[in-house]
Amino acid sequence: MAQTSQEVVQAARKAGSRMADRNTPFIYNEWYVAAFADEVGRSLLRRTLLGRDVILYRTEGGQAVALDNRCIHRSYPLSEGFLDGDTVVCGYHGFRYDVTGTLVQVPSQDRCPKGVGVRQYPIVERGPLLWIWLGEEEADPARLPPHQWITEPDWVCSKGYFHLQGNYVSLHENLLDLTHLSFLHAKSFGTPDYAAAKFRAEINEGRFALLRDVVPTTLPPVWAKPTGMEGYPQAARIVRSEFMAPSLHTVAVRFYDNALPEADRPEFRIRTAHIPTPETHGSTHYFIVHGRDFAQDQEWITQFMHDELFKAFQEDVDGMQHLEQMLEKADDDFFEISVASDRASVEMRKYIKARAEAEAAQRLERTAEQPVQAPSRLAGVA
Amino acid sequence: MAQTSQEVVQAARKAGSRMADRNTPFIYNEWYVAAFADEVGRSLLRRTLLGRDVILYRTEGGQAVALDNRCIHRSYPLSEGFLDGDTVVCGYHGFRYDVTGTLVQVPSQDRCPKGVGVRQYPIVERGPLLWIWLGEEEADPARLPPHQWITEPDWVCSKGYFHLQGNYVSLHENLLDLTHLSFLHAKSFGTPDYAAAKFRAEINEGRFALLRDVVPTTLPPVWAKPTGMEGYPQAARIVRSEFMAPSLHTVAVRFYDNALPEADRPEFRIRTAHIPTPETHGSTHYFIVHGRDFAQDQEWITQFMHDELFKAFQEDVDGMQHLEQMLEKADDDFFEISVASDRASVEMRKYIKARAEAEAAQRLERTAEQPVQAPSRLAGVA
Amino acid sequence: MAQTSQEVVQAARKAGSRMADRNTPFIYNEWYVAAFADEVGRSLLRRTLLGRDVILYRTEGGQAVALDNRCIHRSYPLSEGFLDGDTVVCGYHGFRYDVTGTLVQVPSQDRCPKGVGVRQYPIVERGPLLWIWLGEEEADPARLPPHQWITEPDWVCSKGYFHLQGNYVSLHENLLDLTHLSFLHAKSFGTPDYAAAKFRAEINEGRFALLRDVVPTTLPPVWAKPTGMEGYPQAARIVRSEFMAPSLHTVAVRFYDNALPEADRPEFRIRTAHIPTPETHGSTHYFIVHGRDFAQDQEWITQFMHDELFKAFQEDVDGMQHLEQMLEKADDDFFEISVASDRASVEMRKYIKARAEAEAAQRLERTAEQPVQAPSRLAGVA
Repeated sequence: MAQTSQEVVQAARKAGSRMADRNTPFIYNEWYVAAFADEVGRSLLRRTLLGRDVILYRTEGGQAVALDNRCIHRSYPLSEGFLDGDTVVCGYHGFRYDVTGTLVQVPSQDRCPKGVGVRQYPIVERGPLLWIWLGEEEADPARLPPHQWITEPDWVCSKGYFHLQGNYVSLHENLLDLTHLSFLHAKSFGTPDYAAAKFRAEINEGRFALLRDVVPTTLPPVWAKPTGMEGYPQAARIVRSEFMAPSLHTVAVRFYDNALPEADRPEFRIRTAHIPTPETHGSTHYFIVHGRDFAQDQEWITQFMHDELFKAFQEDVDGMQHLEQMLEKADDDFFEISVASDRASVEMRKYIKARAEAEAAQRLERTAEQPVQAPSRLAGVA
Repeated sequence: MAQTSQEVVQAARKAGSRMADRNTPFIYNEWYVAAFADEVGRSLLRRTLLGRDVILYRTEGGQAVALDNRCIHRSYPLSEGFLDGDTVVCGYHGFRYDVTGTLVQVPSQDRCPKGVGVRQYPIVERGPLLWIWLGEEEADPARLPPHQWITEPDWVCSKGYFHLQGNYVSLHENLLDLTHLSFLHAKSFGTPDYAAAKFRAEINEGRFALLRDVVPTTLPPVWAKPTGMEGYPQAARIVRSEFMAPSLHTVAVRFYDNALPEADRPEFRIRTAHIPTPETHGSTHYFIVHGRDFAQDQEWITQFMHDELFKAFQEDVDGMQHLEQMLEKADDDFFEISVASDRASVEMRKYIKARAEAEAAQRLERTAEQPVQAPSRLAGVA
Repeated sequence: MAQTSQEVVQAARKAGSRMADRNTPFIYNEWYVAAFADEVGRSLLRRTLLGRDVILYRTEGGQAVALDNRCIHRSYPLSEGFLDGDTVVCGYHGFRYDVTGTLVQVPSQDRCPKGVGVRQYPIVERGPLLWIWLGEEEADPARLPPHQWITEPDWVCSKGYFHLQGNYVSLHENLLDLTHLSFLHAKSFGTPDYAAAKFRAEINEGRFALLRDVVPTTLPPVWAKPTGMEGYPQAARIVRSEFMAPSLHTVAVRFYDNALPEADRPEFRIRTAHIPTPETHGSTHYFIVHGRDFAQDQEWITQFMHDELFKAFQEDVDGMQHLEQMLEKADDDFFEISVASDRASVEMRKYIKARAEAEAAQRLERTAEQPVQAPSRLAGVA
């Protein structure tokens, strides 16, 4: 009765067992965007990142700070306390922490316990983005995924955010196979010819791209209007969709008039940074920065593109939510069939799974190594 | 301190262990009503039946179709896609399935993988009801539970539906002991003499009936008005309440004037098909068809009976919901005491449990038999 | 990167393992307040107490009664039934119970099964409080925690209730370290000097007190206005905060003018009975009785104190809710650091944990002892 043969089911399950899904542990040793730079200021912003409950704020000097949100005394959320200068004061019994997370005052006693504090997480600020490091390895800014263009004057950008009720792996997969533009985005920026267009995958260690040349095509309004090619059937839409890191996917598109000789034709380029930061296994902070390198002074284009694009991204958000509800109830009968256009995303999911499992194994090892000491009387701690 | 003696508790638990409850697996090898016939048409209706997420639609020729709702590609719900002729197109990447559930098109490639598809479930249409077969055994229409009368011209019927927040076993049990009419339905169609009326049980393999003769009695308005016996204390109410299958319970009632000699008196008959289809272990699609074989042309009676009855059935729905909340939190201290009027329902629950467990054991066996094959390269599947 | 050294973490976890928290079993062998006396009357009040679903009502003679809420027939909540004289009738099939919980009528049959019923819980009424005994040991009123003053004419009292979304242990801990007045209650009845005031702990078996002398101080309006010391910097605030039992914590405060000689100065005393009854592990019935022994005839003081105090207690309720959300998600990395002012509460938590575990062990033993009898045919029970 099942329409899929047992042979195919077995093979699909075997392949699936190596691919990341919503149950895969998070990869902590990566930079993730914690917030847009302008979200964080002189109050305590609470946010859950990769399952960690953190607070974000800026010092009087403007430096962004990230600390664990749980007071080490009685677990009260520090986000319910307040900033006093650059220190954070717990709203329950007044325990005070400095910007490094070190406990510096216990109001009910003169002496403050030493060697006690909440974890501080390294933060790097780059243009509109605050990147956080939640891992155990050293927080090296050289490991930031490439996104230099966002801060360059050539690129005029706008930004937006979705609280996505879905796992971040599904979002990466969505972005790596844009076949879906013809269906999920049939009413926004997809066109019918998109799904059947020629594509090729580029597979590198930790970098996975799908390239698609939709030529000739008629551009949807979001691209046709700014490039002056409305209703013109000889347009070219050259798309590179690339997984840069678990925390960043970049879609780069070039448009041009395919009827013109290559040397003479102007090119219009847009880029979108899709920046998923897992919140929980079933929800994701979905930051987006979108830019173009043409007609930079035309404010109406910025606004028009932003409005049209975010309507389309809302379709992704809705779709990922439908998907999440299906994946949540996956049982023993579950399997997925992959086809050729999934090649990049299958490799991406295998990469995430392998890294996540290696990291989880390291965590386990580290925990096993911790000596279980006989408790000694600790200075200042009852 | 416990008011029930340990001896009784132990015996009650021993008896209870053989009776179906909300934790009992579903019985799949049965016909269940998936929907009323007029609910299903030329769009995709999503419904969860015995835990399975299915879509229902009609072909252009009017044939009802039921398919699994999960696209075998990336698990997107097909219910978010659309009908194209008789085929279903996934709303994510456009995978297309025919009425048998077979995958017939992958838009991003020329060749379509073979031997791949979603499960199709047999459907049989009978009058106002669409019956579905979700089991592994052969879907034999001869196994439909008896409900011929619903489609016969002698019987004028109306129908209704409740989304019941309770397990279907509790609903069957409710129907098999109508003692509750004097209490749960004290304000609708119950009368005080109902609970104490003589009853007898009929126990057959898979068929369990409770018969109750409430004679003489005064009928409640829902029956008194249509039969012309309002306020008349010499009425007879002869009730047969019967479990026909896990998916059907029929209540048949005869009314007559008990003061008239048997040969001369007219009889008024009503029947109600109570049709529970489990949705989840804690919720049930509760379809109801109610009919009578007298005064068939009096439209006001159809409407009046329908309105009055569904007020009473709402009391059952509310009651089953209260009950479900109690059963959900049953712990180690839980036990139930049965009395004589529970005989039919106790046998019914033992029957359901035995069948459910036998079927679950078969499923386990089948799974164990599946060869875990070395995955081979499958034609058209990456 | 973690700001707390491994040595401290290990010691904290070792200490924490002996302290009660939201996962600790309840202590049943104690008197708990089930309801205020005026909440219970001639209808069925449903309430969950220590996880038990009970009904409370009064007999025609005015005696308060507590019974298990689950009908032993088919588990219907008795709270959906009704009172008939002093008996409770189930709203499903009409099973009837007397005030002792004994089943006395089954409407569908002449004979009523013997030795069957729902559990009745002893109730003791003292002034505005109804105390219930849910344990297995004998319900001895001599074991009621001391709260005599509440019923004495010297003390003018008002009362209130919160449905607290938090565990009762956290509430006891909150009350045992009033350092938090300077922070959580900074805007109500806390003052900045409170946290740093001298304190001492009194540790006795099952009784734990923290004493705090805030001298000299300026009283907050709630105390300053009734005592006539508004804006006066020479006031004394002498606080005794005491855990009397798992079900009662009493805060007793004396106020006086510190500039007057001890012999001459009038003293103003207030007391607050904080009465937590666990509902579930994550929620608590929080009853409060507050009284004073001065200016007893000034109604405005009663009202003013009540209004101001309950604003402050709302801050505790909100705070405990924030805390509960943090404690719910405690994982393997969890630990808490205690300081000197936690001494009484640490001892209190160790005491609760030890008693709870001893009681749980007894329950386990008792269960193991129950003979698993061969079920015999029970009189009147099918």
